[in-house]
Amino acid sequence: MLPDQLLLRIPGPSPIPPSVQRAMSQPMIGHRGAETTALLQRIKPKLKPVFGTEQDVLLVTGSGTAGLEAAVANTSKPGDEVLVVVVGAFGDRFVKIAQAYQLQVHRLEVTWGEAANPEDISEYLKEYPEISSVFVTYCETSTGVLNPIKEIADAVHDVSEALVIVDGVSCVAGVETEFDEWGIDILVTGTQKAFMLPGGMFFAVVSERAWRVIEANPQPRFYLDLTKYRDGLEKDSTPFTPALSILFGLEQVLTLLEEEGLKQVYARHRLMRDMTRAAFRALDIPLLVEDAYASPTVTAIKPSDFDAELLRKQVKQDFNLAFAGGQQHMKGEIFRIGHMGYCSPADVLQVIGAVEIGLVKIGKQISLGAGTAAAQQIYLEQGVK
Amino acid sequence: MLPDQLLLRIPGPSPIPPSVQRAMSQPMIGHRGAETTALLQRIKPKLKPVFGTEQDVLLVTGSGTAGLEAAVANTSKPGDEVLVVVVGAFGDRFVKIAQAYQLQVHRLEVTWGEAANPEDISEYLKEYPEISSVFVTYCETSTGVLNPIKEIADAVHDVSEALVIVDGVSCVAGVETEFDEWGIDILVTGTQKAFMLPGGMFFAVVSERAWRVIEANPQPRFYLDLTKYRDGLEKDSTPFTPALSILFGLEQVLTLLEEEGLKQVYARHRLMRDMTRAAFRALDIPLLVEDAYASPTVTAIKPSDFDAELLRKQVKQDFNLAFAGGQQHMKGEIFRIGHMGYCSPADVLQVIGAVEIGLVKIGKQISLGAGTAAAQQIYLEQGVK
Repeated sequence: MLPDQLLLRIPGPSPIPPSVQRAMSQPMIGHRGAETTALLQRIKPKLKPVFGTEQDVLLVTGSGTAGLEAAVANTSKPGDEVLVVVVGAFGDRFVKIAQAYQLQVHRLEVTWGEAANPEDISEYLKEYPEISSVFVTYCETSTGVLNPIKEIADAVHDVSEALVIVDGVSCVAGVETEFDEWGIDILVTGTQKAFMLPGGMFFAVVSERAWRVIEANPQPRFYLDLTKYRDGLEKDSTPFTPALSILFGLEQVLTLLEEEGLKQVYARHRLMRDMTRAAFRALDIPLLVEDAYASPTVTAIKPSDFDAELLRKQVKQDFNLAFAGGQQHMKGEIFRIGHMGYCSPADVLQVIGAVEIGLVKIGKQISLGAGTAAAQQIYLEQGVK
Repeated sequence: MLPDQLLLRIPGPSPIPPSVQRAMSQPMIGHRGAETTALLQRIKPKLKPVFGTEQDVLLVTGSGTAGLEAAVANTSKPGDEVLVVVVGAFGDRFVKIAQAYQLQVHRLEVTWGEAANPEDISEYLKEYPEISSVFVTYCETSTGVLNPIKEIADAVHDVSEALVIVDGVSCVAGVETEFDEWGIDILVTGTQKAFMLPGGMFFAVVSERAWRVIEANPQPRFYLDLTKYRDGLEKDSTPFTPALSILFGLEQVLTLLEEEGLKQVYARHRLMRDMTRAAFRALDIPLLVEDAYASPTVTAIKPSDFDAELLRKQVKQDFNLAFAGGQQHMKGEIFRIGHMGYCSPADVLQVIGAVEIGLVKIGKQISLGAGTAAAQQIYLEQGVK
């Protein structure tokens, strides 16, 4: 195995582009000085299209989970009824946070590997009209399901005044996101997935409707009080010390996204998803998620006749190629391939070529190259602009 | 195409490992200070096994060509008869340098794509007993031929007192090199190929026999006077300003080579060669060089029914994957794939997967995945320790 080569194909953190790595190694500047003001002024307008919003995108030092907590703490108080749509491990995370805040949590459980059904949500809200917020995951990292956020937001707004609060951690910047148009109220995402940065900050967007709820909410909070970040950003500042290196890198990420073009970025992610899925189909290895809800950023594979963990170990040993295993009850049942951010169709071909070797090595009968050929065929059909 | 991703598969410069890149970005130190002395003391013993020698390996700031010139200028004077074995463009480079120094150059021409025949060399030397040096290329970058240096050195020593001077630029650190055992007199190589560094320095090893010739040689020289580097290195120093960043990187390169183990490094290069060759064979695309003399670091492909330049453009456009074209009369006739240094079998699978797509896009009829499968088969047969 080649020392110093790690093929990081887990669903986050994802690899960091060299130019972003270089940008992050800029010398420190004062976070209350003119340089940081100028940096934030440059970043602010470029972040908006990634979220599909005219709102400022708030920049908070903390992980994605801090972002989920901020969404809960800013909008709810003990006793509030909320609905959490749980399609996997990260829906579960929302539940735990809501419980910690002593909310009255309704849990709408969806079988892992399936997407949330908007109609089920509106039916639920009709039955429990006191529900004030609906929490839903955009891409469920644990299964590779992409929930239909636009349809879910429509379904909520049709029957209720509840806020639509979305965890976009493992997909925003890799899939189309239209915060304003879809009627999302709060959207939170982290830096370490399709944003091609290390973990360390989260982004949040808040609708005008949600700001009114937040401002009226008596729930005590300080560091995660989103109004502080909104007011800071209006003056091109942050209320507390920002993770400056990540902001340096973020500026370069936004340049890369602009250079490639967001539409093309999203098309590339769909292409990588389709190549990956076609390959496993050709190898006769089951996918966890059906086509309609498969995320462009992560694919879960559910082998029927070999040990997922054995394959993970094999490709790690041979190629230092890292996949993720399953979480919770899916542990050992599935493995997950990240294809987001700094990942190309050529990288997908590499992954598949290595997987085929791994499969043979763990004793599965396959036709070598068959998965590769299927992925190549998809590439040729969809092309790259 | 993914911005910021360049798949650099030319026969040098080759990609730089991230840990080497980081090592190279260390702050400057004084090159006459204790830190540099200590750095050279650490580097010196670790370089020797890479060249298979007990001699000190000289470190000179300059490109590989400066190294070739140093070999000529230190051993010969105007009018000296020398034999240059020309198997490609870099044999030609030796001729030009020798002519610039007004040597009497005998040129033993070998068809591009073939290796030098040791018997032809000894026959030549018998015919011209005044020849004082034989210049030969170890790996000929322009064709991907690996000359049998041990056999050539034996053939020279059997019939002559001539020095055996070897250009090892595009292979040392990627293929077995036994300077002492094989009876090489001068070996020169650059930093930007299998040494996984940027260009900027060359390494030279000189036999005791060659030092005697060098010391007796009246040819004027100053910067490239190798005795200065020998004497400097004995005191853990360099006679002139060294390219310090490259020395920082070199220390890390030597750590990586040690970590993987030289035997394994060489096995990996042979494996990558064999995977590449098997893939093109399976696709029914001719290779320039026969198996016995194919270099583990670079493979030349000579298409019979498609335009080499068209394929190069296609994979560059689709994947930002860079191959080299042909040089001199081979321009447009061949393309060359570098698989040296920071390159893994997984990278070779990526290259082949992308090439197959490129071939279809330029209109060649192939069976998608067939080249990949052949390479995978080789991997499975040879394995990786």
